[in-house]
Amino acid sequence: MSFASLLSHLRQTAALEQTAGLLSWDQEAMMPVKGAAQRAELAGAMAAVIHARNADPRIPEWIAAIDRRALSEFDAANLREAERAYRLATRIPARLAEESAKAASEGHRVWAAARAAKDFQAFAPALKQILALKREEAACLAEGDGPDALYDALLDQFEPGAKTADIGPMLEGMRPRLTALRAAIAEKPAPKAPEGAFASARQLSLAKTVARRIGYDLEAGRIDLVVHPFCSGTGGDVRITTRVDEADPFNCLYSTIHETGHALYAQGAADPFLPAADYCSMAVHESQSRFWENWVGRSRPFAEWLHPVMVEAFGETGLDGPDALYAAANRVETGFIRTEADEAHYNLHVLLRFELERDLISGALEVDALEAEWNARFRRDFGLTPPDAALGALQDVHWSAGLFGYFPTYALGNVYAACLDAAMRTALPGRDEMLRTAETGPILAWLREKIHVRGRALAAPALIEEATGAPPSAAPLLDHLEAKFGALYDL
Amino acid sequence: MSFASLLSHLRQTAALEQTAGLLSWDQEAMMPVKGAAQRAELAGAMAAVIHARNADPRIPEWIAAIDRRALSEFDAANLREAERAYRLATRIPARLAEESAKAASEGHRVWAAARAAKDFQAFAPALKQILALKREEAACLAEGDGPDALYDALLDQFEPGAKTADIGPMLEGMRPRLTALRAAIAEKPAPKAPEGAFASARQLSLAKTVARRIGYDLEAGRIDLVVHPFCSGTGGDVRITTRVDEADPFNCLYSTIHETGHALYAQGAADPFLPAADYCSMAVHESQSRFWENWVGRSRPFAEWLHPVMVEAFGETGLDGPDALYAAANRVETGFIRTEADEAHYNLHVLLRFELERDLISGALEVDALEAEWNARFRRDFGLTPPDAALGALQDVHWSAGLFGYFPTYALGNVYAACLDAAMRTALPGRDEMLRTAETGPILAWLREKIHVRGRALAAPALIEEATGAPPSAAPLLDHLEAKFGALYDL
Repeated sequence: MSFASLLSHLRQTAALEQTAGLLSWDQEAMMPVKGAAQRAELAGAMAAVIHARNADPRIPEWIAAIDRRALSEFDAANLREAERAYRLATRIPARLAEESAKAASEGHRVWAAARAAKDFQAFAPALKQILALKREEAACLAEGDGPDALYDALLDQFEPGAKTADIGPMLEGMRPRLTALRAAIAEKPAPKAPEGAFASARQLSLAKTVARRIGYDLEAGRIDLVVHPFCSGTGGDVRITTRVDEADPFNCLYSTIHETGHALYAQGAADPFLPAADYCSMAVHESQSRFWENWVGRSRPFAEWLHPVMVEAFGETGLDGPDALYAAANRVETGFIRTEADEAHYNLHVLLRFELERDLISGALEVDALEAEWNARFRRDFGLTPPDAALGALQDVHWSAGLFGYFPTYALGNVYAACLDAAMRTALPGRDEMLRTAETGPILAWLREKIHVRGRALAAPALIEEATGAPPSAAPLLDHLEAKFGALYDL
Repeated sequence: MSFASLLSHLRQTAALEQTAGLLSWDQEAMMPVKGAAQRAELAGAMAAVIHARNADPRIPEWIAAIDRRALSEFDAANLREAERAYRLATRIPARLAEESAKAASEGHRVWAAARAAKDFQAFAPALKQILALKREEAACLAEGDGPDALYDALLDQFEPGAKTADIGPMLEGMRPRLTALRAAIAEKPAPKAPEGAFASARQLSLAKTVARRIGYDLEAGRIDLVVHPFCSGTGGDVRITTRVDEADPFNCLYSTIHETGHALYAQGAADPFLPAADYCSMAVHESQSRFWENWVGRSRPFAEWLHPVMVEAFGETGLDGPDALYAAANRVETGFIRTEADEAHYNLHVLLRFELERDLISGALEVDALEAEWNARFRRDFGLTPPDAALGALQDVHWSAGLFGYFPTYALGNVYAACLDAAMRTALPGRDEMLRTAETGPILAWLREKIHVRGRALAAPALIEEATGAPPSAAPLLDHLEAKFGALYDL
């Protein structure tokens, strides 16, 4: 009876969270520009309502009356998530939750204008406010007072249970091999890039074809254009967004495959309204998007299927066969923008942000010094200095939306994707042939069974271990990158 | 202090209502088809939250502590609206509000499928459920137990304070002159219809041009395609929807002008979050859409500006000048569909629904008999029998969404528009010249001052009297229709 009341409460809260998610999707994809200030009020009102529900005083009463021994693994996870949400909500005052939501909504608007003007100082006051609220929030949530306590508290919101002391060394331990790989590639000539006319409508049509081909159900989703692509929703309504660069057919294509990877996870949820069926962690979410983008979409066998499809879409592409397509889709170029980075550079971009945001949260770095510090550390890792803030500290949406502790999940997602890939090679011996024909149904089925329907039954490291037979490690990712680019660049 | 608490509460409730409004817009304009069942849960959860806020037990405490003598007219209206919302909410149990929202969301889906299949019986079970919930709701709200008590309670939700005993005779009193006009026109030859190629993209572009020209701020709005056009939102985010018939350029054009009339009202609200600044009533809303559609868009002087604009959009239109355009835009044809009806027939369509829904609510008419009764009464008024339910009882979205008591506000809106038109002719003697050049700024300014910024300061009849100097009456509408069509059809 208590458990039924709790579940009913959780389901309705999930419906309100999906509503708030739709507000965000709409803000990016549909909202007229003059609606922004008003929208901040809507977002704030929804955050307050959701916060009040998560802090409902009946929750601990229901929980106390539940016989835990009678619960299935799935219901035990629902209970654990309910306890977690209650703990998070009761430690953050309603006033702070509402202010944070408003600051994020307004901050996003200010950031977009500052980025267009390439003017970091125009964004700095908004970022200071967001950061102050985040530090206040972290202090409410922190366990203990160690050097990573504040950052751990924020990280936990995206990667439940993860600790900086664990993931920091694993991620930062990748830097030597990553910078060595980058330096080795930089001395070699780049393969041929695509050449031709890549009209926007044809790129979108191709992206839709590929998304549908690898399993995205467009009757339960849609694709729209935005500045910074994302995926939102769950169950029967999972929407992705993308962008088009008419000079580069790979931008839209791989951005779409990436978001489709997220969408496949969300469409595979066992129940759209129960927390135990929600995605396991952001890193596990990212493992799905990266797997489809890089281990499927940018693989040599998939190029067999993709090459004729691209020729049909665009006519001449300048790439005379699958080998040329594979090489072009994996061209390595040192660039400034994370979301456009190749596999060889991507994790270095993430490590930079991981470092910087830990320093912002700990107080070791001031917002006024962020642009200069970004540029200096970028030079250290990439050998280049960003020419303006739009190519530097203003390029990502995350901090403007109050997302601190989110960046490391991107690199962790690549680590998990590589672990899953290695296990899948054993589990599905015919996988290369599936990729050559883009008959990827068994691959999706394997991910559905091992990851998607498992929801939050286990924490991320345990889920990866259950799926692969070994605890997560960075080795498969580094091995994959060195093998792939070693062969492509004759290192 | 109490009043400030009340206002703050009302503002946040308004933000949640706008969020729920966005869910509805999205459902019609954006949602993927498989999202429907899930969306019903979201709509139900939002309805429950809004209901709980409107029934918050602190509201009567705040209200009791307010010094009414110190309030401005605007704040007195806020107080009145707060009392009204509390009364409505506390009389409707949360369980009923949630069931109604779910039934409406699901009913809409069933209706759309039934309409596509032209199968009234496929919709009947859903309609019975919606109707039962509506009658239950009306019984909760009804004052007294007169023959119109249930219907009055529903009518009041759209037209605050209106009584069937007042508006019934005014509206039904129009039928003799309307049917006489219809019969007289039917004996005359119809003017030439437009001929040419009216590509969808050009129609949408023309519609956008005209909407912007008459004052719609597209930076605070957007236009999308749907089956059944509507307007939603307020303040800085007011969205309209439209539809395109490639055989008829007037369908999209006048549908868009109509929704733009609604949008101009919503964009002119003095405050997007206070109930006193909200629209006065649905009939006043409709007076704005109809005014721009018929008294501006279908007027003879406006045809002077519109004719060359249409020639530029489409090349040949088959209409050799403003006179031919004016005649074609006011072609009278007896048809089955309300939303496509000309001015001469429109109010007869509304009167039919007004009659039928009163009988459904009173219990005099059963859902199973609705299709036959619709067809019989349609024959009585129009001289024709609908060939299928999509052209008959299934054509309108309203009942599927639980909207009973809404239809009469369409005819009442035409009555109010004619009253405003008559007063504006005196107030703005240069109005015909404004229409000839589509320099309609002073017309919008007059409506902004007399109607838009007045919000809910007064009830609708008092607002019309304040704006026009006389209580509302059907005479200006009937005089307008007889004069216009008498001249066009040489009666």
